Amino acid sequence: MIRFETSEDRLEIKFNEERIFLHTEEHPCFFLGRGREKIASYLGNFEIDDYIDTRMPLASYEIVDENAVRFFTGSLSLKVTFRVENNRLIASFNPSKPVNRFWMRLHAEAEEHIYGCGAQASYFNLRDRDFRIWTSEGGVGRSPASLTAFYANLDTRGGGSYDTTYYPEPTFISSRKYWCHVGSFSYSRLNFEHPDFHEIHFWEVPNKMVLEFADTYPELLTRLTDYTGRPPKLPDFVHDGVILGLQGGTEKVLGHLDKALENGVDVSALWCQDWAGIRYTSFGKRLYWNWVKNEEIYPKLEKTIQDLDAKGIAFMTYICPFLLQNESLFNEAEENGFLVLNKDGETYIEDFGEFYCGLVDLTNPEAFNWYKGVIQKNLIDLGVKGWMADFGEYLPVDAVLHNGIDAKKMHNHWPVLWAMCNYEAVREREKLGEIVYFMRAGGHGSQRYATSMWAGDQSVNWEKDDGLPSVIPIALSTGMTGIPFMHSDIGGYTSLHGNVRTRELFDRWCELNVFTAYMRTHEGNRPSENFQFYDDEDAMRHMGRMTSLRKALKPYIKTVVDEAVNQGYPMQRPLFFHYEDDERLYHKQDAFMFGRDLLVHPVTKSDVDEQGVLLPNDAWIHLFTKETFHGGSIRVKAPIGFPPVFYRASSAQAKLFESIQKKFSMT
Amino acid sequence: MIRFETSEDRLEIKFNEERIFLHTEEHPCFFLGRGREKIASYLGNFEIDDYIDTRMPLASYEIVDENAVRFFTGSLSLKVTFRVENNRLIASFNPSKPVNRFWMRLHAEAEEHIYGCGAQASYFNLRDRDFRIWTSEGGVGRSPASLTAFYANLDTRGGGSYDTTYYPEPTFISSRKYWCHVGSFSYSRLNFEHPDFHEIHFWEVPNKMVLEFADTYPELLTRLTDYTGRPPKLPDFVHDGVILGLQGGTEKVLGHLDKALENGVDVSALWCQDWAGIRYTSFGKRLYWNWVKNEEIYPKLEKTIQDLDAKGIAFMTYICPFLLQNESLFNEAEENGFLVLNKDGETYIEDFGEFYCGLVDLTNPEAFNWYKGVIQKNLIDLGVKGWMADFGEYLPVDAVLHNGIDAKKMHNHWPVLWAMCNYEAVREREKLGEIVYFMRAGGHGSQRYATSMWAGDQSVNWEKDDGLPSVIPIALSTGMTGIPFMHSDIGGYTSLHGNVRTRELFDRWCELNVFTAYMRTHEGNRPSENFQFYDDEDAMRHMGRMTSLRKALKPYIKTVVDEAVNQGYPMQRPLFFHYEDDERLYHKQDAFMFGRDLLVHPVTKSDVDEQGVLLPNDAWIHLFTKETFHGGSIRVKAPIGFPPVFYRASSAQAKLFESIQKKFSMT
Repeated sequence: MIRFETSEDRLEIKFNEERIFLHTEEHPCFFLGRGREKIASYLGNFEIDDYIDTRMPLASYEIVDENAVRFFTGSLSLKVTFRVENNRLIASFNPSKPVNRFWMRLHAEAEEHIYGCGAQASYFNLRDRDFRIWTSEGGVGRSPASLTAFYANLDTRGGGSYDTTYYPEPTFISSRKYWCHVGSFSYSRLNFEHPDFHEIHFWEVPNKMVLEFADTYPELLTRLTDYTGRPPKLPDFVHDGVILGLQGGTEKVLGHLDKALENGVDVSALWCQDWAGIRYTSFGKRLYWNWVKNEEIYPKLEKTIQDLDAKGIAFMTYICPFLLQNESLFNEAEENGFLVLNKDGETYIEDFGEFYCGLVDLTNPEAFNWYKGVIQKNLIDLGVKGWMADFGEYLPVDAVLHNGIDAKKMHNHWPVLWAMCNYEAVREREKLGEIVYFMRAGGHGSQRYATSMWAGDQSVNWEKDDGLPSVIPIALSTGMTGIPFMHSDIGGYTSLHGNVRTRELFDRWCELNVFTAYMRTHEGNRPSENFQFYDDEDAMRHMGRMTSLRKALKPYIKTVVDEAVNQGYPMQRPLFFHYEDDERLYHKQDAFMFGRDLLVHPVTKSDVDEQGVLLPNDAWIHLFTKETFHGGSIRVKAPIGFPPVFYRASSAQAKLFESIQKKFSMT
Repeated sequence: MIRFETSEDRLEIKFNEERIFLHTEEHPCFFLGRGREKIASYLGNFEIDDYIDTRMPLASYEIVDENAVRFFTGSLSLKVTFRVENNRLIASFNPSKPVNRFWMRLHAEAEEHIYGCGAQASYFNLRDRDFRIWTSEGGVGRSPASLTAFYANLDTRGGGSYDTTYYPEPTFISSRKYWCHVGSFSYSRLNFEHPDFHEIHFWEVPNKMVLEFADTYPELLTRLTDYTGRPPKLPDFVHDGVILGLQGGTEKVLGHLDKALENGVDVSALWCQDWAGIRYTSFGKRLYWNWVKNEEIYPKLEKTIQDLDAKGIAFMTYICPFLLQNESLFNEAEENGFLVLNKDGETYIEDFGEFYCGLVDLTNPEAFNWYKGVIQKNLIDLGVKGWMADFGEYLPVDAVLHNGIDAKKMHNHWPVLWAMCNYEAVREREKLGEIVYFMRAGGHGSQRYATSMWAGDQSVNWEKDDGLPSVIPIALSTGMTGIPFMHSDIGGYTSLHGNVRTRELFDRWCELNVFTAYMRTHEGNRPSENFQFYDDEDAMRHMGRMTSLRKALKPYIKTVVDEAVNQGYPMQRPLFFHYEDDERLYHKQDAFMFGRDLLVHPVTKSDVDEQGVLLPNDAWIHLFTKETFHGGSIRVKAPIGFPPVFYRASSAQAKLFESIQKKFSMT
């Protein structure tokens, strides 16, 4: 299946008769070199300056045997060995001497599109751009056109840019219908700007590249997730309504819950991230980072959890790998040498702005097990059904780790270790499929170890790169990287520099999240200054309508979850996933398929009453009007409560949709 | 004087016993490679994306003879030939095959400081940073911390950054007491970030590098300007008061002039940039770009000029190398093939926002001569004593030029051609030293061909990178590049995005400009919305005080001008220029020496009543209080009208300063 074709100085490497590499002396496929990086970090935001000393083209080659080629210049060489396993092409790389910069050019075609690379918020189609693979804060504003980003940069250098993301991964899908993964957690850049090659750059020689073709996109996702692994299924309860994110202690949260129930909201769970207590900083309300139930504001929490359980409402909490200095868990971890150290061999203390924390060293198997035990004893055994497993993207590059590996090389690996720690805690308690935790940071392996993800901290506005519209490309790109379960904070999170959440934004976000892994609200970083549903009966009634819709869709949604778990299809899929012949669909990042049969083009702009929708060539029935369309560009009414959603006329579940249409009809 | 010292793989190249290059296999001095650039331009703002294909270290060397070394890797080599001429080290470079990327590492010392590289507004000391050498608009705001820059970027991508400048040049001064010039106009980057080398990067192999040592900074500037050339002297009249920038036609400008004279302002010249007419755009008031006197608003201009002359007031105008489409000069130039063409062989029309222009092709000797004639006939022969010779930094990279050279390679050369065109016009009329034109764009050669420069278009505010404070580093860095005559628009120019000039800003700017090449006001881009002196008698009286001070200083200033013309010392000099032993002075960019005997630390912040001043080790007398200081950090009162200025007690002109002290005393 691998074939080397040569003529003069030209070497073509084909796999399944498809061109993978095209090498000539003038345009070599491999370059090795040396560089030196400077990395400055500001609370999870990183400034990376890379100075390249040398970049040597390995312009010459010799075929070693039928499976290996040596590329070289002078005495510097790279032996590339190919093998095929389970239909996958695996290339491994062996340099003649140590180098710290590696460039590889995969053959590209001018019309090719690229997707994936983890969670990408600004551009779903990655072609024509260069993406850094380095887990970090997503950034506030994320665009030079965003005033929010301007102020965030002034404050904390936290404005971000189009490629800052909590979850980057050197894994992508090509419209040539292959998936490709490069095996290294080091910093990398994937540059898809060039018409004739994709340039893949790492700060080390990667272990391997893996690449596999399939005939269709669904098949491709199955193949990819056969390789990466797939998560356990979502517990059924998350489809029964919304997970309400509430804070402030038992009395307050139960009060809000009652109001929501009275106003017709179906509630699947109560998520109290402040279960361990609260602290106030100038950024806003922050949690008390000592992961022990707080008896003061949540007295007799077990009892509360049991009472809620009896009503069919789950309880959820929060944890992250940081521990508040001088508190019980920190002290225990520090005594046992379980915390990450600084260069001086002392506990690495991170200043989070008015509070100080240590970080559990997940590369230390004992620390990993201890923290897994904390999750088990303090969270799972309390009876909780899920939690936000926050952070993962902060590992400072000057940290000293137990496993002796440079923190720069572990940085992108960290979120995966954090996912594994949560996964193992749940697995050992035999609760996979019953408990769901949600993570924002990710890396290669999150496909298996994160039971679900959320899109991180969006701004509470309508901005393309960091507001409501951005959660669609995030879902689509993570989906194409093999993560099937994505959702976002209803209403967004970050309220800074004058950005304040409005009811309209909350309502529209709520509509969108019906068609994600599950619905969950968040009060945001400054709850009292921003719109909260519990202050507004109309908003609760609207949310109630949306949770009823979600519940009504449950039989369908369960089939979508099954496809995710068994075949690796993301719940939210790009339109071309099932309609690959329509070139226009490859550029859409404002609409998606929710499973095979629903097409959703949510309203993500303010002051909208109607909206244009591009329908693939098929027969579509509007979910709220029953009107039938046969593909093409249409325009439909889209008042609040009636986002443009269509089901396939030929769906096996058409009857279900028809009954929903009757109940939720616009007219 | 050149010496090669070798040991194992190490080669040291010394000149005058000073280390110039230190080469080892691991740390080579030369790299050659290939790259491809993408350059997008937006009205003089450029976005440059440089993709490096290869960067080959020339790790090996062989000594060819006592004057030449061949650096090489494989078959790729660079022969570097050294010679000494007039005490200068001249290195020339001969590559074995064509390359389009060149890197050279000059030896550097950790404590070394670097200055020059043309007009640098953000950082006078260039060490620890990387500077692009590419003439462009300076940028509005010029900093990620500037809200003005944010909005300018949104509008026109015109926000700029710390190294965007009208006048960049690959020529610098090291605190090791050498000057260095690299002979190429191609795009380059001078990177002074590294502790042990300066990296000099060009998009071609430069012709040569020239480097010369001297014992003192004054001597160094003389040596540098012996090489670059020096301008003719400033005409005396510019020291007799302020050049008033006024617009609106004869009646209006004479009215403003009279008011100024009545309020005690000494006026050396009237500068009417709208002599050829006016047009209004959304940016503000723009000039009518057909360089012919406008009979409508300036009827009988010759007569007006003669009348003013009789009162000792010169008249000044404006010209730039652009010509308004379908007007007389444009038509004449187009008919003769004197305009720059586009790729299709048509006249290259630049859209300036609501008006369209062609550009005179200065690489065409006939066009050059024709335009020189326009300057002579339409300006000089009219009797004007000076003009703003505007623009020079806009040459689009996709233009097609008469001399057949790629516009990318001519781009940095263009401002020098424009300076030469003006220079030759004046020289042929035998008016050098009588006429003064002022330019913002520059390049290597402007030292000789620009009779003076101005600092470009500052924002009308107090911002560090683009407001009042920025004109000091601009003057100091151009000074260290061999340009002695610099000044700026009193009050600044750019009023956009809510920035509006205040009287306080105007007053402080006026104080600063007493101590520059000459004083000149500008109404700014939006005259009616901004503070104008003629609307405020107090401001005129303050300006009058400043012009009297200027006049009183004339005998001293003339000696400073003589030093500029004869020895190449800039009028505004960094403090270390004459006090090289004080390390603290190497970091000062808010104060300067005006000639040998005056130390000026202007007020460039608002709401200031007093100010700290760092004095070098010498005896200093406050120009307005007579108080004597003996170096060190002091604090003095600095109300409007009394900027912190000190003269040397031992000055040969101490008597002059004493008499000024009496007349202008603060008490």
